[in-house]
Amino acid sequence: MTFRIFLSLIFIGCTTHLSFCQTETSDQDVDEDALFLKDIHNYALTESSTYVWLEHLATECKGRLAGSENAEKAVQYTKMVMDTLGFTSTSLQPCKVKKWHRGDPEYVNITWGDYKKYKGQSVRLNALSLGNSYGTGPDGITAEVIEVQGLDEVEKLGREAIEGKIVFYNRPMDPTQLRTFNAYGGAVDQRVWGASKAAEYGGVGAIVRSMTLRQDDYPHTGTMVYKEEFPKISSLAISTNDASFLSELLKKEKVTMTVKNNCAPGEEAVSNNVIGEIKGTTYPDEIIVIGGHLDAWDVGGGAHDDGAGCAHSLGVIDILNGIGYRPQRTIRCVMFMNEENGLAGGKEYARVSNEKGEYHLAALESDAGGFVPRGFSFDGHADVLKPFYARVSKWLPLLESYGLYFTTGGSGADIGPLKDQKGLLIGLRPDSQRYFDYHHTEIDQIEAVNKRELELGAASMASLIYLIDKYGLK
Amino acid sequence: MTFRIFLSLIFIGCTTHLSFCQTETSDQDVDEDALFLKDIHNYALTESSTYVWLEHLATECKGRLAGSENAEKAVQYTKMVMDTLGFTSTSLQPCKVKKWHRGDPEYVNITWGDYKKYKGQSVRLNALSLGNSYGTGPDGITAEVIEVQGLDEVEKLGREAIEGKIVFYNRPMDPTQLRTFNAYGGAVDQRVWGASKAAEYGGVGAIVRSMTLRQDDYPHTGTMVYKEEFPKISSLAISTNDASFLSELLKKEKVTMTVKNNCAPGEEAVSNNVIGEIKGTTYPDEIIVIGGHLDAWDVGGGAHDDGAGCAHSLGVIDILNGIGYRPQRTIRCVMFMNEENGLAGGKEYARVSNEKGEYHLAALESDAGGFVPRGFSFDGHADVLKPFYARVSKWLPLLESYGLYFTTGGSGADIGPLKDQKGLLIGLRPDSQRYFDYHHTEIDQIEAVNKRELELGAASMASLIYLIDKYGLK
Repeated sequence: MTFRIFLSLIFIGCTTHLSFCQTETSDQDVDEDALFLKDIHNYALTESSTYVWLEHLATECKGRLAGSENAEKAVQYTKMVMDTLGFTSTSLQPCKVKKWHRGDPEYVNITWGDYKKYKGQSVRLNALSLGNSYGTGPDGITAEVIEVQGLDEVEKLGREAIEGKIVFYNRPMDPTQLRTFNAYGGAVDQRVWGASKAAEYGGVGAIVRSMTLRQDDYPHTGTMVYKEEFPKISSLAISTNDASFLSELLKKEKVTMTVKNNCAPGEEAVSNNVIGEIKGTTYPDEIIVIGGHLDAWDVGGGAHDDGAGCAHSLGVIDILNGIGYRPQRTIRCVMFMNEENGLAGGKEYARVSNEKGEYHLAALESDAGGFVPRGFSFDGHADVLKPFYARVSKWLPLLESYGLYFTTGGSGADIGPLKDQKGLLIGLRPDSQRYFDYHHTEIDQIEAVNKRELELGAASMASLIYLIDKYGLK
Repeated sequence: MTFRIFLSLIFIGCTTHLSFCQTETSDQDVDEDALFLKDIHNYALTESSTYVWLEHLATECKGRLAGSENAEKAVQYTKMVMDTLGFTSTSLQPCKVKKWHRGDPEYVNITWGDYKKYKGQSVRLNALSLGNSYGTGPDGITAEVIEVQGLDEVEKLGREAIEGKIVFYNRPMDPTQLRTFNAYGGAVDQRVWGASKAAEYGGVGAIVRSMTLRQDDYPHTGTMVYKEEFPKISSLAISTNDASFLSELLKKEKVTMTVKNNCAPGEEAVSNNVIGEIKGTTYPDEIIVIGGHLDAWDVGGGAHDDGAGCAHSLGVIDILNGIGYRPQRTIRCVMFMNEENGLAGGKEYARVSNEKGEYHLAALESDAGGFVPRGFSFDGHADVLKPFYARVSKWLPLLESYGLYFTTGGSGADIGPLKDQKGLLIGLRPDSQRYFDYHHTEIDQIEAVNKRELELGAASMASLIYLIDKYGLK
C-alpha cells in the first residue's frame, strides 16, 4: 500500500454505528472518561515498561514451573518491579506447590513392517511428556498403537481392543471455531483424562495429538490428571505433523511404539503469590484484583502463557501511576503461582481472602496471551451478574472506540476461586488466532509477542479498571 | 491457561450487545444469511487454498516490482490459478509500467570528530534507496548532515542552512495512533517529497527515518516523487535504530555522511493486470470487483504487501465456488499491477472500463496485510455514499458476530480510479498493529503471515461480497 489511500479518508463508519449503540450514560462524565482513556492509551504506547518486564520474564526466567529455580527468580523479579511502582504495600504470599520433573528428553519411536526380519521402517517422533505424568522407567514400554478419536471411543472399543496397547488420541481441535479457545475446550479432555481412560481398559500408555490448530513439528505439553483407581500409565503429546503421519500409517500398517521417559511428580515445595496493593481512598474495603499467573511450562519462555498476563497487570499499575490516577477502591495486582499444574496460588489467595472476610468487587485476569485486545468476558454468580453487566454495558461506547467488545469465554482460572465473594469476574480477551501456535511449547518466546499488541492489552485493562474504580458496579 | 476456564462459559456478552445494535432487516433472510456466512467461514478455515497461493507468491515470486522477471512470474502464476477456479473467462490486461532498478547495495556511512586528523568515528548505516530515486553516481556524495522534523522545517530554515547538506528527515510515526495507517499517513510526506523539498533549498541528498513504529535495524523502502523543477538528488531510508543513533549524535557532533548508490529509473515495459470474471446470472451489467496488487517492492517477499490481498481475492472466488454460490451480479477478481510505483494497473483498468461504459456497483480491495480482519472502510462520491451505507449497515449484526465492524480509512489505491463510476469503494481493514513491522522490508515474508488470520480475511471479504451480490446496494 502506498500513501495515496490517505488522500480520501472518510468518517462515516464509527459515528453511525455508535449512534445505534449509545446507552444511557447520564451519571457518567463521558467526555472526561474519553479523555482519560486516551491518556491511558497514550501512556501505554509511549512510556510504559510492560514489554521490558515481559522480556525479562521470558528470557531470564524461562520455564518457570512452580517450585523451580526459575519460578523463584520470577517471584523475586516481579516483587522487585512492584517495589518500584508506588504500591501502599507489596508482599509474598506463601503457597504449597507440588513439583513435577520432566527428566531426560523423551524418546518416542515407531516401527512398522516386519521390522526385525525384513528391515521395516522406524521413525522417531517429536514428543513431550504431559505435566503430572509418570514416566515409563528406564526400560520403557513397547506396544502396538491403537488410534481413537476420543475418550468415548475407548469405552466403545472396550478392553478387548485396548488391553496391552498404547492409545493414541487423535481428535483434532475444530478449525471452524472462530474462538480458538472453544476449539481447545473441545479437544483437551483427551490430554487431561486420556491416560486414565486408557488405563481403565488395560492400555499401557497414552499419546495425544498436540493441542494446536497448526500443522507443525512442535509438541505441546500441558497438564494431565490421573484417576486414583487406575494404573498411572505414562502420557505424552506428539506434534500435529507426527500425529497426522502416524494416523495415515495406521490406515495401512500395524505400528509398534516404544516410549521411554522418566518424568515424575516431585516433592512439595513452598512458592509464592506476589501481591502489590494500593489502598483505596474512599472505598478501601472494595477490592479490585488484576492478575496473571507467574508460572509457565518448563519447555518455553512462557511469553504468551502467561508472562503477558503478568506484564499486563504490572502495566496497568504503571499506567495509572503514570497519568496520576489515585484509586478510590483498593487495587491489588497479583502474580499467581502454579496455575499450570495445581492452581495452588489461586486457591490460597481466595482462602486467605475469605478467612479475612474480604470482598472482591471485581477481579480481572489476563491469561489468553499478549495479542491485540478484542474485549472482555464475564463470569460470576447468576444472581449478581445482571446488575453488574448492566453497569459495564454503559461503558461499551467508550471501549468500542478502542476496538473492545464484550464476548463469551469465562474469566480466568486463578480468580475462579473468588467467585463465592459474589463480585464480577472478568477475563481479558485478546485476539485468539495465534495463541495455540505457541501455547505450552518451546516457541512461546518473547519474539512471538508484538510490543504494541502487548501494550494495548495493558491499556485496555487499565481502561476497564479505571471505570470500575470510578463508578463501581452497582 | 489450563482447561479449567472452559467449565464456566457464559453467554451474556454478544446477545445483549447485539440487541442494542439490531437494525431493520425485514427484506433480508437473516437466518439463511447467518448460515451462509458460517459456511463461508468453515470452508475458508478448512478447505481453501488461500495460504498455499500466498506461499507461492511470497517465495517463488519474491521482489516482484513492476516490469521485473518475478512480476512476470506472478502474472503467469495467478493466471494459472485463476484458470482452475471456474471463471467464465480469464485474461491479461496489458499496462505500460516504468521500471526502476535498485542497483548495487547502498553504501551510507557517517563520520564525526576530526576524522582524518584525530581518528574520528565511522559507522555504516542500514539503508535502502527509495523507489523512483536516482543514485549518486560512482563517486557518491559526501556532505554534512542536517536533521529536520519535516518539510516545513526545511522551508523555515531556508537556503542558508540547507545548501550543500544532506537533509535527514526524522519525524517518527506517531505511536499514539491506534490505527497505524494514520501514523503512516502523518509521516510519509517526508519520504515522498523530502528529496525535492531539500533540493529546492540547495540540499544535495535526502535521508528519511524508516516508516515503522518499531525500533529495529530494517530499512523500509517505498515510493518517492520528484518535482520536475528541482535537481533530482538521491533519497534513501535508514533504519529506525540508525535514525535514533544519528539524531543523538547530531546533538553533540557535526556529522558527515557519504552516500553511494546507483539506483535509477529504467525503461518502459509492458506488464499486465490479471483478471478473472464470473458473469452474473441476473444483473450481469452490475460489476463487483475484488482485488489486490500483484507487484511488491524488490527487497522482500511481498507477503503482507500485497501478496495477502491477491491471495484474499483468489480465496473469495475459491470459497464462493466451494460452497456452490452462483453470483447474480458479475464478479471480477483483479490482480492489479504496479501499485507501488506508478499505479499503471489501476489506472488502465478504470480507463478501459470507462471506455466500455461499464458500471462497477462495488469494488473491494485488500491492501492492508494478511492480519486478522477487523472490518471494512468505505469511500465513494458523497452523493451516492449515503444510500449505500444505509444498506451495508443492515448487515452489521451479521458481520459483528465475526468480529467485523465498519471503520474509517478509505478503500484502496488500485480501485480509487473507479470512483467516477459512482459505485461503492471498500477497503478490507485487518488489524494494523504489525503491518508496519514488515511493510516494504526484507522481512515481509510468508513466515510473517498466520494461516488462519489470512483465511479469515478471505472469509470476511467473501461474506460482504455475498451480501452485496444477493441484495445489491440500493
